[in-house]
Amino acid sequence: MSMPSFPLLQTIDDPADLRRLTRADLQTLATELRGFMLESVSRTGGHLSSNLGTVELTLALHHVFDTPHDRLIWDVGHQTYAHKILTGRRERMHTLRQLDGISGFPQRTESAYDAFGTAHSSTSISAALGMAMVAKRQGEKRHAVAVIGDGAMSAGMAFEALNNAGVADCNLLVILNDNDMSISPPVGALNRYLAQLMSGQFYAAAKNVGKTVLGPMPPLLEFAKRLEQQAKGMVVPATLFEKFGFNYIGPIDGHDLDSLIPTLENIKSLTGPQFLHVVTKKGQGYKLAETDPVAYHGPGQFDPAVGLVKGSAAPRLSFTQVFGQWLCDMAAQDARLVGITPAMREGSGMVEFEKRFPERYYDVGIAEQHAVTFAAGMACEGAKPVLAIYSTFLQRGYDQLIHDVALQNLPVVFALDRAGLVGADGATHAGAYDIAFLRCIPNMSLACPADERECRQLLSSAFEQNHPVAVRYPRGSGAGVVPLDGLDSLPFGKGEIRREHKATPPAKAPRIAILAFGSLLYPALEAAEALDASVLNMRWVKPLDEALLRTIAERHDALVTLEEGCVMGGAGSAVTEALNAAGIVRPVLQLGLPDQFIGHGDPARLLALQGLDAAGIGAAIAARFPAHGAA
Amino acid sequence: MSMPSFPLLQTIDDPADLRRLTRADLQTLATELRGFMLESVSRTGGHLSSNLGTVELTLALHHVFDTPHDRLIWDVGHQTYAHKILTGRRERMHTLRQLDGISGFPQRTESAYDAFGTAHSSTSISAALGMAMVAKRQGEKRHAVAVIGDGAMSAGMAFEALNNAGVADCNLLVILNDNDMSISPPVGALNRYLAQLMSGQFYAAAKNVGKTVLGPMPPLLEFAKRLEQQAKGMVVPATLFEKFGFNYIGPIDGHDLDSLIPTLENIKSLTGPQFLHVVTKKGQGYKLAETDPVAYHGPGQFDPAVGLVKGSAAPRLSFTQVFGQWLCDMAAQDARLVGITPAMREGSGMVEFEKRFPERYYDVGIAEQHAVTFAAGMACEGAKPVLAIYSTFLQRGYDQLIHDVALQNLPVVFALDRAGLVGADGATHAGAYDIAFLRCIPNMSLACPADERECRQLLSSAFEQNHPVAVRYPRGSGAGVVPLDGLDSLPFGKGEIRREHKATPPAKAPRIAILAFGSLLYPALEAAEALDASVLNMRWVKPLDEALLRTIAERHDALVTLEEGCVMGGAGSAVTEALNAAGIVRPVLQLGLPDQFIGHGDPARLLALQGLDAAGIGAAIAARFPAHGAA
Repeated sequence: MSMPSFPLLQTIDDPADLRRLTRADLQTLATELRGFMLESVSRTGGHLSSNLGTVELTLALHHVFDTPHDRLIWDVGHQTYAHKILTGRRERMHTLRQLDGISGFPQRTESAYDAFGTAHSSTSISAALGMAMVAKRQGEKRHAVAVIGDGAMSAGMAFEALNNAGVADCNLLVILNDNDMSISPPVGALNRYLAQLMSGQFYAAAKNVGKTVLGPMPPLLEFAKRLEQQAKGMVVPATLFEKFGFNYIGPIDGHDLDSLIPTLENIKSLTGPQFLHVVTKKGQGYKLAETDPVAYHGPGQFDPAVGLVKGSAAPRLSFTQVFGQWLCDMAAQDARLVGITPAMREGSGMVEFEKRFPERYYDVGIAEQHAVTFAAGMACEGAKPVLAIYSTFLQRGYDQLIHDVALQNLPVVFALDRAGLVGADGATHAGAYDIAFLRCIPNMSLACPADERECRQLLSSAFEQNHPVAVRYPRGSGAGVVPLDGLDSLPFGKGEIRREHKATPPAKAPRIAILAFGSLLYPALEAAEALDASVLNMRWVKPLDEALLRTIAERHDALVTLEEGCVMGGAGSAVTEALNAAGIVRPVLQLGLPDQFIGHGDPARLLALQGLDAAGIGAAIAARFPAHGAA
Repeated sequence: MSMPSFPLLQTIDDPADLRRLTRADLQTLATELRGFMLESVSRTGGHLSSNLGTVELTLALHHVFDTPHDRLIWDVGHQTYAHKILTGRRERMHTLRQLDGISGFPQRTESAYDAFGTAHSSTSISAALGMAMVAKRQGEKRHAVAVIGDGAMSAGMAFEALNNAGVADCNLLVILNDNDMSISPPVGALNRYLAQLMSGQFYAAAKNVGKTVLGPMPPLLEFAKRLEQQAKGMVVPATLFEKFGFNYIGPIDGHDLDSLIPTLENIKSLTGPQFLHVVTKKGQGYKLAETDPVAYHGPGQFDPAVGLVKGSAAPRLSFTQVFGQWLCDMAAQDARLVGITPAMREGSGMVEFEKRFPERYYDVGIAEQHAVTFAAGMACEGAKPVLAIYSTFLQRGYDQLIHDVALQNLPVVFALDRAGLVGADGATHAGAYDIAFLRCIPNMSLACPADERECRQLLSSAFEQNHPVAVRYPRGSGAGVVPLDGLDSLPFGKGEIRREHKATPPAKAPRIAILAFGSLLYPALEAAEALDASVLNMRWVKPLDEALLRTIAERHDALVTLEEGCVMGGAGSAVTEALNAAGIVRPVLQLGLPDQFIGHGDPARLLALQGLDAAGIGAAIAARFPAHGAA
């Protein structure tokens, strides 16, 4: 990518380069960074609003701290584009989130400047505290800095870390990047409290701290004393964070280098846990993103001059949309339905539901543990909660699912979006494990719709049950089978035969049945043509359709299981367990995701690389069960 | 059990009975309750300190609130003996925590008064909020009350719930039962803050609120005004909990019915989220328990007049002790070792480690999520963290294990105590799922020692690795194989043959190999004698010893897998997956825990009921693979 318009940025190959710059040059660099990022993201897609919001903060941090010796941990990590550009990855930004390209998140394997891999929210303080404690033990002069957004701060994990860090005697700096904007609008008491901190004169006065006190730099100690008086005595009375044992400083303007740099330099000289409250604006510097930061949270490709074009050529209905429509339709029919999301209104397709049923919509913030048990509490009282949650984020509520929902056998529906590979977000967000970690839990049921129509039907089936049921569906769209309008369901725990092998096979060729769980049914059907294999659409991992399995096992010589989930402990193992329990001995080929973390890239391409497209499936079966017998 | 000495208690079959009592009678009842509980727990074993501490609170709550119409949720729930005794279960207390007896925790299936099943900490506020929100939607006048200890308050989940509850417009009362004592001593900033709240004059003044203002009851509104002035203006300036949106009242003396009852009656008339801070003393009323609440947290049987007898006839070394000794020995040898516990110093066997290596000991409080990522952060800096955590509590740190430890392939050792059935604590604490939920995660390894000696050796093996490894071991003691003194390890990922079948079997009798994972190796060896089966001590679930498996599969007609963990997705499925991957077709019998929650009772008896003793294992194998062929 040629960059004629970013002359200063082109000279920055390492943070050391920017430590030599004047304040005025840094300001110029900030402008160039924004321009470069906007151009780059408009070509590759990626996160935009959050990255535009952290340009000055990133510059200031690398300017003041001795990275990578000092550890800089970006919570969630999707706001690290400026960080990546300034730490030697500028020329690779055009490969962002693409196969073999750089990740959209920090990764320890990608750069020494990525001190800790992040992606799920609210991990940064725990990790930074761990690093700071080791530095202390080893007597190393090293700072650990966690940058965390106000949305991420609402997760219990961040609280657990604060609770420990506040009494720890180590050099830890927590920077609250307060932009009043997680992916969905912020919720909860903490956010309301932060808004109070920033309201009216507090914030105005804080701005003055930056402008007047920090402008002509007084000697450091004198400055520190004055800052402390102003910041703590005058500006903010006594904050929540001080009650946790932190030295609280702020709020300061996170787009003002003249505030940021002297404040960070001052903090660097203090000891013990420090808390800096920085106020930024998502989308800062790009009017379209400032106005609609949600739309520009993670856009695809677009023309920076024009912005996102709405309503153009509607793509195929996504599973997320299918869920959103089902949720509204079922809510209209059944007053017991309540919808719960942990801060994923847009991603989970609940925008319309919130509009139509605001009093039955609960966004609990980034708080998966609470979300699950809150649903359990509601279910105890006769409500029918539907918890919309990504497969990968349900990992955060696993104990609650076991201990509060499943053990008490409460009718909570888990709508698991992003089950399987997720594409550009990569390994951190892969919904690869839910089949394995859910099916081992008593009382749980788990359905895997093969397409959009079944997704709607199986959600209805799940909702009809009087016990917990998860319905898992992949990111994006499927085979394109248009859902029916009604709320008819499919039979609980029953699969179907979609294709029966036709010919009498040659003498030693095995009769093969492919048992497909979920949307890989369609490539299986394609592969089955050449193999003349039978194909089953199993629909339910649990309960498994054991009657169907026995029938099929009797009529076939070999079975193939297929799922977009880890093979280890997955649906294929459910099949072999059922065979073992029934005393049926058959060769089984288990196809699915391998025992490794799979990086980012185009989802279809990633599936193909794992042999989970029609060609790969056909080849794997043919290799294992040759037409003229061998295995 | 005859109860000549508890005449008033004998008349209480329902909370309605105690609502008719005078304050003086309630006081008498409190004394009788303590006496009854002490006698009862000294016979059955169970939790004592916490139950002695909540006698008055329990009486006051059932006296003031209209249970079970009003919902009363006890966090953790091991402090509910008084609650159980007062809600119709007095005559069943002698069956406490025994097979077919009543549970040591609240259970919805046991009583309508048990509004929500608890056991793992910090779930109560989420559940109560869910219930309160449904009541609000349905227009029902109903209170939801969560009683939560200060230890449980340190978990992120409680914070998530507070963050949501504080802005919810519903009738929710959170009672902080502040006894400054979770199982291990309290840690963290929150606890320090609570201590400040209670220090010196604050608490003294609060006691006076109870004694003077509440003594002669003024009319309710006037009273409310005065209480508010006193409690908020004079007594406590502005609390953390008010910042969360709660109306904070307290601290009050939780053993003073004259404070508790009027305060609760007053609160009942207020609307919106209320927070009552109650101070109690664990062990209250039994001097021995007051002096040593840790020892009396969960004692076995004892003579109330004498108390616990220390140092008497040391039982067999427990796996917990084996871990504790190994931890000290390895720490002495390797300075990189750090030990982390989420509030389970005693239960995890870390008392000695803390004494000898205080600067390498980290009790993070009830904060499993933080514990895991904190360990990850430390591992990044070259430390070698050993996280001691019960199998059931690792469910709380599952996402962090995947996202922060495994994905970054960091060398954290997970010492999983209480893997398998746990006995008296029952289903909520069962370590039944860890094999299934851990082995599906890439980069993870998982070892299952067969006995005490192997436990020590496999911990050393785990510590030698440069990637995450979990070592799971059961509650209590094992076969009694005394550990060796050194720190020698066992080969990574390798099992061993412990018994080879001897005779050439009769014509159609199958040659059987039992593949044992963990301590069930010993009953397997016993069962194998009659069957003349081979027995393998597999030691590692992951990596599975596939070479050994192939060898054994070649030489045997049938395989039996055996584990103290769920069959679904468990070690047996790892075996069948490996067979499937290798194209080996053999009949496999998978023995382990069934797909149901298993209640409390004597662990050996529970295992026998599941057919996991020598007799059961032998019978299951003989039925499936008869000596003269059938299957």
